Amino acid sequence: MHGELITVGNELLSGLVVNSNAAHIAHHLGLSGFLLRWVTVVGDREEDITTALVRGMERASFVLVTGGLGPTDDDRTSEAAARALGRPLRRDALSWDILTGHLKKRKMSMKPGIAKMADLPEGAQRIDHILPRAGYYIGDAAKPLFFLPGVPEEMADMLREFVLPTLKERFPERMTVRSRILRVFGLMESEIGQRLTGLEAEYPELSLGYLPRFPENRLTLTVHASTVDVADAILEKASQSVVGKLGLHVYGVQDDTLETVVGALLQESGYTLALAESCTGGLIAHLITNVSGSSAYFDRSMVTYSDAAKIHHLFVPPELVSRHGVVSAQVAEAMVRGLQRESEANIALAVTGLAGPEGGTPQTPIGTVFLALLCDKGFRLERFQLSGDRQRIKIAAAYIALDWLRRAIIDDSFFNGGQHRNA
Amino acid sequence: MHGELITVGNELLSGLVVNSNAAHIAHHLGLSGFLLRWVTVVGDREEDITTALVRGMERASFVLVTGGLGPTDDDRTSEAAARALGRPLRRDALSWDILTGHLKKRKMSMKPGIAKMADLPEGAQRIDHILPRAGYYIGDAAKPLFFLPGVPEEMADMLREFVLPTLKERFPERMTVRSRILRVFGLMESEIGQRLTGLEAEYPELSLGYLPRFPENRLTLTVHASTVDVADAILEKASQSVVGKLGLHVYGVQDDTLETVVGALLQESGYTLALAESCTGGLIAHLITNVSGSSAYFDRSMVTYSDAAKIHHLFVPPELVSRHGVVSAQVAEAMVRGLQRESEANIALAVTGLAGPEGGTPQTPIGTVFLALLCDKGFRLERFQLSGDRQRIKIAAAYIALDWLRRAIIDDSFFNGGQHRNA
Repeated sequence: MHGELITVGNELLSGLVVNSNAAHIAHHLGLSGFLLRWVTVVGDREEDITTALVRGMERASFVLVTGGLGPTDDDRTSEAAARALGRPLRRDALSWDILTGHLKKRKMSMKPGIAKMADLPEGAQRIDHILPRAGYYIGDAAKPLFFLPGVPEEMADMLREFVLPTLKERFPERMTVRSRILRVFGLMESEIGQRLTGLEAEYPELSLGYLPRFPENRLTLTVHASTVDVADAILEKASQSVVGKLGLHVYGVQDDTLETVVGALLQESGYTLALAESCTGGLIAHLITNVSGSSAYFDRSMVTYSDAAKIHHLFVPPELVSRHGVVSAQVAEAMVRGLQRESEANIALAVTGLAGPEGGTPQTPIGTVFLALLCDKGFRLERFQLSGDRQRIKIAAAYIALDWLRRAIIDDSFFNGGQHRNA
Repeated sequence: MHGELITVGNELLSGLVVNSNAAHIAHHLGLSGFLLRWVTVVGDREEDITTALVRGMERASFVLVTGGLGPTDDDRTSEAAARALGRPLRRDALSWDILTGHLKKRKMSMKPGIAKMADLPEGAQRIDHILPRAGYYIGDAAKPLFFLPGVPEEMADMLREFVLPTLKERFPERMTVRSRILRVFGLMESEIGQRLTGLEAEYPELSLGYLPRFPENRLTLTVHASTVDVADAILEKASQSVVGKLGLHVYGVQDDTLETVVGALLQESGYTLALAESCTGGLIAHLITNVSGSSAYFDRSMVTYSDAAKIHHLFVPPELVSRHGVVSAQVAEAMVRGLQRESEANIALAVTGLAGPEGGTPQTPIGTVFLALLCDKGFRLERFQLSGDRQRIKIAAAYIALDWLRRAIIDDSFFNGGQHRNA
């Protein structure tokens, strides 16, 4: 049992408007155990709306349509619906009363465009009984058809108040769907897929969705079952199984981000943070300070872009820069130690690297990044070779830094990794 | 002549993700004179992708498909394409080389999922010749077919670099449409609309599109005409007229951003820049350093989030903080003067403010931001009252700072504005 959504409107085909109605409807249907299998977007042409409706009624168990119900010439959905159903348009008495009452209150006279909003396909049942909002239900067609306005708030109201309850009544046998997003850092999509081989076979009610969103991956676990309790139990077991296979790479669930997770860990642990940034150019500090309440644990970031700034503020010896280059393990270590001298914060993290596109050498190609972290638990320094353009290198380096902060707090083996260890 | 877009992915049907790819593609096609007539969204079922492709090839002049090209089991687009075209999948030598090269660099071995990404429908021509990004073109089918990744940045790159040029070559007869995006900062959409009243009446071939993209507005001028020369001439005249009415609020065209414009101005003028950031938390530095070559003019940003950092690095007198509060004109001025003492840079800019959500008072409500700028041309200090949540306040403050840098360089009257003037 699957539904189809048809969204109508030229503005959706010209790219002026993002189809957020579709996401809203899909999400709320899913939460109630109804799945969409097709979404079709058409413009305001009557023939395209008609074709889409005929096709939707053939292949789906129910059809939702949004848009094209307004007063202007380009609102053609009701005409298209009448044609697709082979039924005439009839003046709907309730709609007429509401519209005339509304106009009267505003001392306006009836216009042909507004009158047209009272002409509904035969058998249509108006959804809103009070406000002059377009929207109706045709329950006696081969498949239940819902026509909703394109205005997001009006659509959302009718979806919640009418469409979902009506669907639940029409399809009591539907499946219960529960889902969860796990947020994964530090593994490629293909590596996740490999580690989770066989999981869907183990849980036949489970389907996995992979959503790479640089620099992380989002993994969606969706469970279909007969009851909420059964679905929740399977979801919980499957999530635990995923976490078992992916380990600390799973850093959060649902809307978590690395910066909110790191923020919560810093807050709980009582640690405070100071940064010394070069190639990330302030991005780590920006992410950290996006979190409400970050002033409780974030002290400063020294965005020392020029050599002069590194030498002056972080006491990096000039001869270290000239001997090893500013992108080097030695300079990263000097930065983090100079930072610790200046700041009272418990954790000091420094990053130096080459984001490009200019300046690469065979020894230090573009994408070379050194991270150094120093706190009472230990010291870690590591060289990374990142790929992509300037922006991707900055972003990847910043998120690796956030992941280091997370692991420095929660992972006891963190300070045993890396190239150098000398706390 | 109309195109069809088919977007593939369960995440689009479950409402987890808003279909922003569809809006992006529609918008950029439109700017090049191509119109979409249908957008179809299907999940990862092979039969639904196949059906959508067959239908798209019947009714559209060209078909774009996004998504379902990755390495996991639920990526079925290539199989569906092969079936819809009645062609076998064949191993593509170039794809194979790129994928194996990429794996080799990472010291990884080939996996079946990744190998599958090299199996393309017969006749497919890989789009990216360097990076391991999925995406191909089938130019010898009944209708030209483009298969693009679902990852937004990869899709956008291929659309710009390959799809649009290829469509222009295949369909030279399209209506000549020329368009230009003007980038506007510091005016609301309604203010722009008001200033441009009558412009469309003056140029009947012109249509204006308003695209608010916080914190700026993008104004699209689109001209339909019989020849390129005519269209270009009208576009040029209309653009000049808009610039005349909006003045320095128009900061750039097409893909310009405030940070690239500021970067170019700093580079040309020989100015160098130092920042002292509090509430923006490193965001100004991040934007400045997103621009390639910024190391030529960007010295440092002192992200002094804690009072201790402001006092230590910027010599802000502690009694100033206790008397006036850290979000005050006095502290902003002390920050910028302390910064100038420390840095050799020609322009010093400081920002202190309250991004919330905690800490507002009647005297200093959330959204209060002070900016101070000091250079050889003069000094300017101003208080702003910004609205929105923490993130919006950070972003608005950072972009106002960038706009100040632009105006400090190009606008001779800049240092006559603001609350205080004492260079």
